[in-house]
Amino acid sequence: MPRRVGKYTVELPSRPFIAGRAAIGGTIEGEGPLGQQLDDIFPEPKFDESSWEKAEVRLQLAAIVRALVASQRKAEEIELFFGGDLLNQCTATSFAQRDYSMPLAGVYGACSTFALALALAALSVDGGGFRRTMAAASSHFCSAEKQFRFPLEYGGQPTPTAQRTATAAGAVVIDTDEGNALSAHSAHVSQVIFGRVMDLGVNDANEMGAAMAPAAADTLIRFLRDTKTSPADYDQILTGDLGEIGSTLFRGLVRKEAGLDVSPVHQDCGVLLYDTARQDAGVGGSGIGCSAAVLCADALPKLERGELKRVLFLGTGALLSAISPMQSETIPAIAHGVLLVGE
Amino acid sequence: MPRRVGKYTVELPSRPFIAGRAAIGGTIEGEGPLGQQLDDIFPEPKFDESSWEKAEVRLQLAAIVRALVASQRKAEEIELFFGGDLLNQCTATSFAQRDYSMPLAGVYGACSTFALALALAALSVDGGGFRRTMAAASSHFCSAEKQFRFPLEYGGQPTPTAQRTATAAGAVVIDTDEGNALSAHSAHVSQVIFGRVMDLGVNDANEMGAAMAPAAADTLIRFLRDTKTSPADYDQILTGDLGEIGSTLFRGLVRKEAGLDVSPVHQDCGVLLYDTARQDAGVGGSGIGCSAAVLCADALPKLERGELKRVLFLGTGALLSAISPMQSETIPAIAHGVLLVGE
Repeated sequence: MPRRVGKYTVELPSRPFIAGRAAIGGTIEGEGPLGQQLDDIFPEPKFDESSWEKAEVRLQLAAIVRALVASQRKAEEIELFFGGDLLNQCTATSFAQRDYSMPLAGVYGACSTFALALALAALSVDGGGFRRTMAAASSHFCSAEKQFRFPLEYGGQPTPTAQRTATAAGAVVIDTDEGNALSAHSAHVSQVIFGRVMDLGVNDANEMGAAMAPAAADTLIRFLRDTKTSPADYDQILTGDLGEIGSTLFRGLVRKEAGLDVSPVHQDCGVLLYDTARQDAGVGGSGIGCSAAVLCADALPKLERGELKRVLFLGTGALLSAISPMQSETIPAIAHGVLLVGE
Repeated sequence: MPRRVGKYTVELPSRPFIAGRAAIGGTIEGEGPLGQQLDDIFPEPKFDESSWEKAEVRLQLAAIVRALVASQRKAEEIELFFGGDLLNQCTATSFAQRDYSMPLAGVYGACSTFALALALAALSVDGGGFRRTMAAASSHFCSAEKQFRFPLEYGGQPTPTAQRTATAAGAVVIDTDEGNALSAHSAHVSQVIFGRVMDLGVNDANEMGAAMAPAAADTLIRFLRDTKTSPADYDQILTGDLGEIGSTLFRGLVRKEAGLDVSPVHQDCGVLLYDTARQDAGVGGSGIGCSAAVLCADALPKLERGELKRVLFLGTGALLSAISPMQSETIPAIAHGVLLVGE
């Protein structure tokens, strides 16, 4: 059962493991550096559906189905499903669940949603009462642009500091370790830490990396203090999704506030998903599906192959709405952490 | 640690208890049948804030502060906070947390959000790793009308089947039982069950009670089968928020599908909050704050005073958005259950 380490971190001694995973992307994600690693690419942005919102439902369903197949489990065997998305009232997640009978716990943490879902899904298995759970999350560039900025037909220009909302989804099945043959080569969830809301006054909705960097730094520093570890104890500290500007700020904040250099091990999901020099992706990716897909397509396979041993995944989220900046609100942010370990 | 009972229900043997609770309402809620039981009434709809959204933040904060005071705990002692609201991107919850340093797990289940937050908060304490957690939720009539229907200035008329979104918030502190003096007269969380998405094809956003009734019936029937109990084993089966029409449908569905009569013990938060014959509240209340406030103002005090011994709280939610009915989507619904027991 879960055991507290330090003030904020919780250790999961039963070693719940990733029994199945899937990452799905759209065309531009498929043309990016991780394109070959995605489990499927949806070549047409609307996926033959009649709306962007319905397309996003289909995207999330595709990730769920593939993760289930990989885990050799049926939907009926999933005892609790944690999921969320960026659409108003989290409809991609709720509507996707119409096709299943999984008990659903909807979660929301903006782009940190996948980390939040993963942490709660692992915690539920380790705490007992649930033998296997799922975590999934999605975002779609077109539904997000329409909702948060302008419909695509408007032809709005992104600012130089803007990130691109990924058309992507990720899903994992978490299972109990004991006696499961799939476990030997899988990544295990070892520790989790939940984020606190941090708001340092950034009010530009096109500069979300800057809004989220303090939250990522806060969670990382609390985690390192709790666990008495340093950045060198991790093969990768994977933030998602700070983008290029936010990543620089994050490294600077950790150096300034804790005197630690994370540069040798720091990677960011938003930076990994696109080749920003070549692709129209601003300063990198964002959107709930970005970190979900990057974790499932890149970090988890590397953990399974033994190329990485310890990955600290820090999902970051900017907790604004389309109207809050217009009401002169600054942007609160949060970062949830999950330590994944390979064999 | 949590233990599975039957297929879906989870028992919490460590008996996490409600160490503090608070319910806040607006003027109309204050004039309703439970007005005297609310911990505070905000007499002016905007609470001196510049927007309905900011007013809702203040409403949720008021519930959080009062619950903390009642539990004799400080915010720093809360190890995980589960909360949600109806505003786009759950901003009432996120913005309220700017004032605190509580680790935050945002949850969303429409009007079932408080039940979902309560179930996860109790599960986290029982599972170990967390000694005390909080659950809170809020809604505001004016911010909800603006977002889901029309701004009030438009003067829209509700349909005869519409429910009134409550201006209300509720919050509880969940603590571990052992050796806590407050525990003796408090309600304990004994069992939880998570909802599945049910969609029987209702597509009228002004008839949400009908959309939610099947989900409430599904969760109740699964719970009774798992626990081998019948409605007579509970002093109250408290749905929230089906309203008058949804309540009738719910009782009929349970009778038809399981041959059980819940009428003698069934109450609905939406029906309890307003006197619909006298107040302008349609067929009863709805909104995330409705069931949160009714549970905290009515059921929990009755459990503490020994007037009720076993209350099965079934929080219901309609998982639509403002645009989904316009895209010809039907309304998926969900119901989460929490069994509360007094001494």
